Amino acid sequence: MKRIKILKPVLVSNQQRAKENRSVFDKTNSLVINIIASPGAGKTSFIKNVVEHLKKEYSILVIEGDIRGQIDSRAISRLGVDIVQINTATECHLDAYMTAQVLPQIKKKYDLILVENVGNLVCPAEFEIGEDYKLAILSTPEGDDKPMKYPLLFHLAKVVVINKLDLLPYVDFSIKEARTAIKRENPKAVIFEVSAKTGNGFEEIYRHLEKEINAKKKKNTD
Amino acid sequence: MKRIKILKPVLVSNQQRAKENRSVFDKTNSLVINIIASPGAGKTSFIKNVVEHLKKEYSILVIEGDIRGQIDSRAISRLGVDIVQINTATECHLDAYMTAQVLPQIKKKYDLILVENVGNLVCPAEFEIGEDYKLAILSTPEGDDKPMKYPLLFHLAKVVVINKLDLLPYVDFSIKEARTAIKRENPKAVIFEVSAKTGNGFEEIYRHLEKEINAKKKKNTD
Repeated sequence: MKRIKILKPVLVSNQQRAKENRSVFDKTNSLVINIIASPGAGKTSFIKNVVEHLKKEYSILVIEGDIRGQIDSRAISRLGVDIVQINTATECHLDAYMTAQVLPQIKKKYDLILVENVGNLVCPAEFEIGEDYKLAILSTPEGDDKPMKYPLLFHLAKVVVINKLDLLPYVDFSIKEARTAIKRENPKAVIFEVSAKTGNGFEEIYRHLEKEINAKKKKNTD
Repeated sequence: MKRIKILKPVLVSNQQRAKENRSVFDKTNSLVINIIASPGAGKTSFIKNVVEHLKKEYSILVIEGDIRGQIDSRAISRLGVDIVQINTATECHLDAYMTAQVLPQIKKKYDLILVENVGNLVCPAEFEIGEDYKLAILSTPEGDDKPMKYPLLFHLAKVVVINKLDLLPYVDFSIKEARTAIKRENPKAVIFEVSAKTGNGFEEIYRHLEKEINAKKKKNTD
C-alpha cells in the first residue's frame, strides 16, 4: 500500500532524530519515560501521583503532548514542577522532531522527564522520541483484550501499568487475562497494578522509578 | 512539517476513493455508519445491542476493523449477521482503499452497514471510507474533557453516544460538561446517553436508526 511506502523513510528519519535527542537527554543524566495509553486511561493521574511523591527528592520535568489545549499542563503545573507543552495540532502522536523542538527550552538538569504522549494506543508506539523506554497504561474499563488488539505498544513497553483497579468490581476485566495477554507480547514486561485515583499500588512504582533514576545517574557518571 | 505535506495527497486521494465507495453503498440503499471511539469505549457492545434489536426487521452487515485478530467478529457473528473482517496490520484506522477491497465480498443488499473502526480517537476521523456519517462513542471513564482534546472527531460526528452510564457513580464525569464540550465542536450533534452493558437508553437509538434507514431507502427510490 502506498501510504506505508511513504511512511517508511519518515520512520527511519525519525529514529535518527530520536537518537540525537537521546544523546542530549543522556548528557544530563535524565531518565526519560514515554507514557502511552488510550484517551482517559489515566496518564495525567499517573504523572500527578509520581510527581507528588518524587518531586522533593528528584528534579522532574513533564513534557505534555496534546492535540490541542493545555488542560493537563495546568493541572500538573499546580504541583510545582516544570512543564513544557507540545500541541501536535492534527498529529496523533509525538515524534522525535517535535521533541527536538522543545529541547532548547530545557535549561537545567532533570533526574526524571515524564513525557505524556497523545492519547492513542497505536501511532505513538511507532515513533521514538529519544526516551529510555515506553510505559504503557491499560485501564480496566478498556478490557483485558487490548494488548492482543494493539500489539505493538505492548510489545515495546518495558513497563505496563494496569490502572483503575478501583473500578474492577464494576467492569469486565480479568487481571489474570490481562497479564497473560501482556506477557504474550512481551515476556519481560514489568507489570504494576494500581489505582491512580486512590493511590493504591503506587509504592512499588515509586521504588521502581527511584531505582531506575539512580541507575541512570550512576551509569552516566561511571 | 514534512510529514503533513506528504499526507495531504493521500487524504485527497482517499476522499476520491471514499466517494466511489459511497456511490456503491448508495446503489444498494444501505445506510453506512462509521463507528469511531477509543479502545474499549464500547464500539462492539454498541453494535451487539443494535444488531440484536434490529436484525429481525432489517438486513445488517458489520464491517470489523482491527489491527489484528478477530475477537469482535467472532462475538458479533454469534448473533447471526453477516460480517466482513478488515485487519489493518500496522494502520491505526480504516481508509477508503481498505473498504474498497471488501466491497466485492458484499453480495447482497443491506439496509444497515455498521463499520467498527480501529480504536482510536484521532486518525480514523481523518479518513472517510464512504460512510453516510460518523458516530462517535465517548465512555464515562475516559472523562468529559475528551471532545475538547480530540476535536476533529467530535466536530465531524453527526451522532455522539455517551456510553457506560452504569459507571457514572464511580468515575469523574459530568454529563452536562460532556454535552457542552460536544456541542462546542458541533452544535448540531445528536447525543444519546446509554449503557451498552445494561441496554439503558438504547430505545431512542433504535428509533433514530429506524428513521434513518427508512429515510435512506426512500431517498434512493424517489
